Amino acid sequence: MPKLELDTIPQTNATGYPAPFGEAVRGRWYRRLAPAAGLEDFGVSHVVLRPGAWSSQRHWHEGEDEFVAILSGEAVLVDDTGETTMRAGDCAAFPKNDGNGHVLQNRSDADCVFVAVGRPAQSRCHYPDIDMVLTPGEGYRVGGKPA
Amino acid sequence: MPKLELDTIPQTNATGYPAPFGEAVRGRWYRRLAPAAGLEDFGVSHVVLRPGAWSSQRHWHEGEDEFVAILSGEAVLVDDTGETTMRAGDCAAFPKNDGNGHVLQNRSDADCVFVAVGRPAQSRCHYPDIDMVLTPGEGYRVGGKPA
Repeated sequence: MPKLELDTIPQTNATGYPAPFGEAVRGRWYRRLAPAAGLEDFGVSHVVLRPGAWSSQRHWHEGEDEFVAILSGEAVLVDDTGETTMRAGDCAAFPKNDGNGHVLQNRSDADCVFVAVGRPAQSRCHYPDIDMVLTPGEGYRVGGKPA
Repeated sequence: MPKLELDTIPQTNATGYPAPFGEAVRGRWYRRLAPAAGLEDFGVSHVVLRPGAWSSQRHWHEGEDEFVAILSGEAVLVDDTGETTMRAGDCAAFPKNDGNGHVLQNRSDADCVFVAVGRPAQSRCHYPDIDMVLTPGEGYRVGGKPA
């Protein structure tokens, strides 16, 4: 059946961020829908941000577009232009290589649920607030040093 | 700003379906978000199905995956396995070439809003209920004849 039974798809809060940067995403619980559903053309994550959790460290990708749609709850989108509250039904797009780091922060006292669409990262990802760069195949560098 | 101001993005109910098959999608009002937002890696449509409207004729693609997430309202997903009601927060995936035609039908008396993700169709699309095939570059054939 095409409808996804979300409860049957594994959910994790795993992160590869070096300490202490993983702390912010400890309440980010996500499911990788594409492999579970047999999709290959793009990736889709179903994400539950518990109160206080961030979607990521603020970041932008050199080579991959991203898109999010909020399904329930609310979160604050932080980017170079400021802070914008996102609520159920709101959508946001993050074109590749625009140099505008973005993050969703759940500052509410209820879960925020969203879907995020993208492709597997094959380019560098920049985290300007913490001077971190992720290079595929090489790993994270913080302040220019391997982390 | 990454948040999309949906009201500023053109909305249309255009369809290329030959008569009388366009009638079912006359209440399908969609916005192409990717070009409006500068995304290239995949397409995203924001779709409002008015009461009675269908998302498409029931179809499947030979070469493109599709994904939908319901943002508000409800619709009935019809596919070869039967009928499934989809509500806000529900997700469905349609892997390429699975031969399982799908359509969302809004049988409620309120709008149903969803996002649909896919890539531009470069392969044939099959509409089993109406014996129609769309071949990119060639157009529609119904009952084997050009429509």
